[in-house]
Amino acid sequence: MGTRNRHIAGKESLVQNGQRRQALVAALDQENLAALVCFAPEDVLLISGYWPVMAASVALLTREDELHILVPEDELHLAESTAEKAHFHSYTPETLDRISTATEALEKTIARLAERLSLRGGRLGVLLEDSAQTQSYLSRNHFHCALVPMLLRSFPNVSLAGVDALLAQIKSVKTNAELEQMRHLCRLAKAGFDAARRAIASGRREDEIAADIQHAFGPVAKDGFHRGEGYFFCMSGPNSTKAAAAFARTRQRVVENGDLVMIHANTVGDGLWSDITRTYTAGEPDDLEQRMRRAIEEARSAALAAIRPGAQACAVDGAAREVLARHGFGKEFKHAVGHGVGFAAADPRALPRLHPKSPDLLEAGMTFNIEPAIYIEGKGGMRHCDVVVCTANRAEVLTDF
Amino acid sequence: MGTRNRHIAGKESLVQNGQRRQALVAALDQENLAALVCFAPEDVLLISGYWPVMAASVALLTREDELHILVPEDELHLAESTAEKAHFHSYTPETLDRISTATEALEKTIARLAERLSLRGGRLGVLLEDSAQTQSYLSRNHFHCALVPMLLRSFPNVSLAGVDALLAQIKSVKTNAELEQMRHLCRLAKAGFDAARRAIASGRREDEIAADIQHAFGPVAKDGFHRGEGYFFCMSGPNSTKAAAAFARTRQRVVENGDLVMIHANTVGDGLWSDITRTYTAGEPDDLEQRMRRAIEEARSAALAAIRPGAQACAVDGAAREVLARHGFGKEFKHAVGHGVGFAAADPRALPRLHPKSPDLLEAGMTFNIEPAIYIEGKGGMRHCDVVVCTANRAEVLTDF
Repeated sequence: MGTRNRHIAGKESLVQNGQRRQALVAALDQENLAALVCFAPEDVLLISGYWPVMAASVALLTREDELHILVPEDELHLAESTAEKAHFHSYTPETLDRISTATEALEKTIARLAERLSLRGGRLGVLLEDSAQTQSYLSRNHFHCALVPMLLRSFPNVSLAGVDALLAQIKSVKTNAELEQMRHLCRLAKAGFDAARRAIASGRREDEIAADIQHAFGPVAKDGFHRGEGYFFCMSGPNSTKAAAAFARTRQRVVENGDLVMIHANTVGDGLWSDITRTYTAGEPDDLEQRMRRAIEEARSAALAAIRPGAQACAVDGAAREVLARHGFGKEFKHAVGHGVGFAAADPRALPRLHPKSPDLLEAGMTFNIEPAIYIEGKGGMRHCDVVVCTANRAEVLTDF
Repeated sequence: MGTRNRHIAGKESLVQNGQRRQALVAALDQENLAALVCFAPEDVLLISGYWPVMAASVALLTREDELHILVPEDELHLAESTAEKAHFHSYTPETLDRISTATEALEKTIARLAERLSLRGGRLGVLLEDSAQTQSYLSRNHFHCALVPMLLRSFPNVSLAGVDALLAQIKSVKTNAELEQMRHLCRLAKAGFDAARRAIASGRREDEIAADIQHAFGPVAKDGFHRGEGYFFCMSGPNSTKAAAAFARTRQRVVENGDLVMIHANTVGDGLWSDITRTYTAGEPDDLEQRMRRAIEEARSAALAAIRPGAQACAVDGAAREVLARHGFGKEFKHAVGHGVGFAAADPRALPRLHPKSPDLLEAGMTFNIEPAIYIEGKGGMRHCDVVVCTANRAEVLTDF
């Protein structure tokens, strides 16, 4: 199986520090879980500091604060360079002697670990529900229905407990190291938006504009990161109206003079994501565009002013929504004012949900976007999306460019 | 729920034609399945012609050749523009009145459809094992363990049957329309590789080179497609040796004179993927590089010559492997000579597996890569990866540039 078991000394990493690990072990204790098993790349990152590439890694943290990372041999070096103090168990998904699924290749390694840990009778926390996940590579493993039965085979007499809500909550509050990582990530994104101003012109196609922006951002995406990427989208005129959708999409439309041109970006550095939008005008903005821009700026300020620990997330949404309604754009603001960002990129369910019906309360260290927007059929869409952290007493904007 | 039920007239599409649908219905009959339910974006594409964005769509095909597509409202227009003749059922994952998971939002729509179809007592085919999936968007839904219980709730008295192997087999053989789409996709990729020759120079960083290539490819990626993207990677010197891994990775290394510089690309157009690698030399190739290149060219020719319907996939691998061994590079060829490409991008398990232990036989219409390679520690890696289709009597190279 090519399994190796090594103990690596803990190392300073941009991502992780003791804060997170302490909180996780305390949560295991409180939830009466013998161990936590993570397989979604963002969850492996959360508990280990390692952001898997092929989504075929599993991290297991025991209540005794023992961290095990099961990782494809191809990713072992990356895992060792980025993860916290952990026991690494590498396995080989494919060799020249054998063709097997990820689950098949992993099973012996997990079973051997399970035997050693002997969590008999305990509760094993694992993700059981559907969720949004960000991409870690263009092709990746999906455990789908195969992981849970494998865990039950490997850990006999252990019962499974869903930790979907627990992980979502833990991911919402960042450690100081994670906040530093996100500040750096957001600063890097500025290169893309600086290029946007130069790239946008009537007569140019959306995909040409997006390509110019990617070209400017590409060589800075990895500064300070083991892995860094950025996805910039350009949506102009009527296509900017469609940007109210759950996803962005660049097309080959030619920008016309006076068009609204929306540039949306999700960038990632070592597994933490940004979510940023700016809207420009090709040429001179007309009266309606100027009114839209003023309303969005005022809504943004109102939302930011409502942010502090203990504030209701729905009240932050309400603050922006009230301003946009007062300016006559109530119906044209079609989505929530924000959602958690960091371990998630574009997931409206990531905590905190700054949504009219959200029960969430803000806490210091929570990171999310603030994205007041106006989408007018026949005119265009304007959105201003910032990444924000709730500090001890206010909102800190990580994308103040 | 915002559900609409519409019947859309079938339309000509690059992706789908009657061939595929007939084969699917015949397979349902043969496997004694009342219906097939697909949720992985590549599988929804396979059976419907629609390539979902957020991976929250479900396609259901009955043995009576009735196709239903359940799709988030944001994607309805895209689904209607690209899918075959189908019944569309849109649902809204998020509204301003409600926060819900994809499964929660979808359940009523599926249950209503189930009631209408009344497949009582029948077998419902669904993916049950783990698998590699390609990315359809940077953040997407993962049904994980939640879909199967939902199906069982919605279709009481129906039993589930795993169709993992069946779908893998069906995906391996392309229709004529899909072949045309892949030919076009591969032709477009040439723009990136043309730029590679100009971008590679000693003194330049890998990420700068990759950004230049992306810049050239970006504005052609969508030509003829609703959605098209490309992922180009640059790995030089010792990093090209590491390219034997399951994934490619661009770093910030500065290319030195004499380095091997490997450019790897996976491009996608409306859900079908390419997998292409070329290796260049920065400056003049030394003797070893020339020997490597000759060996790889000869291995490639041997593999291509072995391709015809009925050939053993392992024999195609063997043909290339024997040549490389004869040139003294046996141990340095660390992976199989190929795997299925099209609905998959970089999945060594996609059929046909051109691997020493593969039991697969080639069929006309199968598309795969041929990627002889030599990875030498301390020197570098060289790989030449083409996309190939097995025609009625030979190999047709789709990437003959």
